[in-house]
Amino acid sequence: MSQVNRQILLKKRPVGVPAAGDFEAGEGAVGVPGPGEVLLKNLYLSIDPAIRGWMSDAKSYLPPIQIGEPIRSGTLSQIVASNVDGWPVGQIVQALAAWESYSVVSSRSLHGKVKAIEGIPLPTMLSVLGGTGLTAYFGLLDVGQPKEGETVLVSAAAGGVGSIVGQIAKVEGCRPVGLTGSDEKCAWLTDELGYDAAINYKKADPRIALKEACPKGIDVFFDSVGGEILNTVLTRLNYHGRVVVCGAISQINEAELPPGPSNYLQLLAKSARMEGFTTLDFAPRYDEARADLARWIRGGKIHYRDEIVEGLDEAPAHLFRLFSGEHRGKLMVKLADAEV
Amino acid sequence: MSQVNRQILLKKRPVGVPAAGDFEAGEGAVGVPGPGEVLLKNLYLSIDPAIRGWMSDAKSYLPPIQIGEPIRSGTLSQIVASNVDGWPVGQIVQALAAWESYSVVSSRSLHGKVKAIEGIPLPTMLSVLGGTGLTAYFGLLDVGQPKEGETVLVSAAAGGVGSIVGQIAKVEGCRPVGLTGSDEKCAWLTDELGYDAAINYKKADPRIALKEACPKGIDVFFDSVGGEILNTVLTRLNYHGRVVVCGAISQINEAELPPGPSNYLQLLAKSARMEGFTTLDFAPRYDEARADLARWIRGGKIHYRDEIVEGLDEAPAHLFRLFSGEHRGKLMVKLADAEV
Repeated sequence: MSQVNRQILLKKRPVGVPAAGDFEAGEGAVGVPGPGEVLLKNLYLSIDPAIRGWMSDAKSYLPPIQIGEPIRSGTLSQIVASNVDGWPVGQIVQALAAWESYSVVSSRSLHGKVKAIEGIPLPTMLSVLGGTGLTAYFGLLDVGQPKEGETVLVSAAAGGVGSIVGQIAKVEGCRPVGLTGSDEKCAWLTDELGYDAAINYKKADPRIALKEACPKGIDVFFDSVGGEILNTVLTRLNYHGRVVVCGAISQINEAELPPGPSNYLQLLAKSARMEGFTTLDFAPRYDEARADLARWIRGGKIHYRDEIVEGLDEAPAHLFRLFSGEHRGKLMVKLADAEV
Repeated sequence: MSQVNRQILLKKRPVGVPAAGDFEAGEGAVGVPGPGEVLLKNLYLSIDPAIRGWMSDAKSYLPPIQIGEPIRSGTLSQIVASNVDGWPVGQIVQALAAWESYSVVSSRSLHGKVKAIEGIPLPTMLSVLGGTGLTAYFGLLDVGQPKEGETVLVSAAAGGVGSIVGQIAKVEGCRPVGLTGSDEKCAWLTDELGYDAAINYKKADPRIALKEACPKGIDVFFDSVGGEILNTVLTRLNYHGRVVVCGAISQINEAELPPGPSNYLQLLAKSARMEGFTTLDFAPRYDEARADLARWIRGGKIHYRDEIVEGLDEAPAHLFRLFSGEHRGKLMVKLADAEV
């Protein structure tokens, strides 16, 4: 085992979109796990919008990353030392760790054991079978509760989560419609992922485009974008409609809180609801979700795309890519291969 | 039966708070019910914030009142002619009718038969046992789903709905806290209605006052006010908190839509939800709710206050009173006594 722990640390809190100067490389000794802790070798980093939230000094479901700490991240990791019963050395796990070669974490940060699944590559355990897929699964099925025949609108539909949400909606017999930012991504959604319609929100007037693409109104809106799109969608929500609040990438980089959705009273007019969640809410059911997702992948019902770059130093640039809106599917950084 | 139908008509759509010039008195012939319709003699009018909404030309759960039409209103009425099986002449009913002496309505607008309950005066069938009480009941219990020991915050707490919500919360073993606009109303909430605490939002800084009055955070916010209070409450919502969207009287009179709650992403941070409803959603369960409410009144668990004025011409002024925030409890207009 290398005795040096390479890290990417939070140098200062971002103002707006994260920039190179907000990060700095560091090196430390590899930690030693205390009681109830394990030492992880991190294999893949999951690049998610949530990271931007944790970089801010704002109260949320997890405390902010402190200045000088490594960037918190979902990871695919291998246990290399363990003081936790049932989590043996060699086990590959999904974890909440950090942008570093090795992390010491408590058992609470171990989110699942990775069991090899035939025909499914290891990093997929971090994308469709990891936090990304779990977010899509629980957010759509448990929070959104789509019913057969309903229209499910998805924002950031070509992103890691959104690209899975639409396909799960299709499995459930719904009519998925995607919002994304280029014609190329629209084509990917409809031609390869089975979305029934896709809207390029940069070209179309969303009010008109939504009317055309969702002629029966919107039953479920799975929203990772927020802002004006959310506000417009509220006016086209059906009776008993549901808005799944998964994020607000349009405002995650804003220094000041932008105005909220002025049309929120549509919730009253439509007896509708707007509900937030984090996948952690559903931790006891991760295995059930992974079993479903794996079955759908094997059955050809879920297609996906992982954009993987190699090397810890690439992590900040990959995070910037997330906010430029140019990627398709899930962004990950590969740090190391598993040790057999 | 009088052959003249006195009416208060919508003369023009209000800009801001409704004013005398938005209404005009009218007289017409008493209508004749067609197939599936009844003729009602209206006994009491229910003065509710919803009326202001119906006066606007905005899409909602019911179509807008048209210019020249009588003002739509919940009523307590007596059937004086009937073409609907099971709704006989003489029956007193809760109905959706209008500000007029007589209304012809279809059976869909008949919301329940009024059965005399010992010790409960007739107009209470329109307040605690009418739409007001039903709104409080279903909004709190079904949408808010309060659990024993939870903190339930209520805005417009001294209003018709709010004054009932807090008392139902108390029945459920919760800790009700009320927001209202005068010290006198605060005292009424805590001394007579059993609220555990009350905040005069005109005097106190809501952020500080909420921290003091709700030291364990807020589990359910029953909101009829909207605006800045809602935005502040979102920051103090507990994990899995619920915002029951009952109305937004702070903005019901605004010509332009004010900004929405900029803190709506607290729903994400807290895995919380914000949900609208109308009592019509729960129509099949009105009798169950009325039975509970009547039992609680008889058991001394619900106290209430009805502010009743007499005469159709008083209806607009009573509606203005609703928005001045000076009333306590439920506002009604008495038009006639029931015929025995």
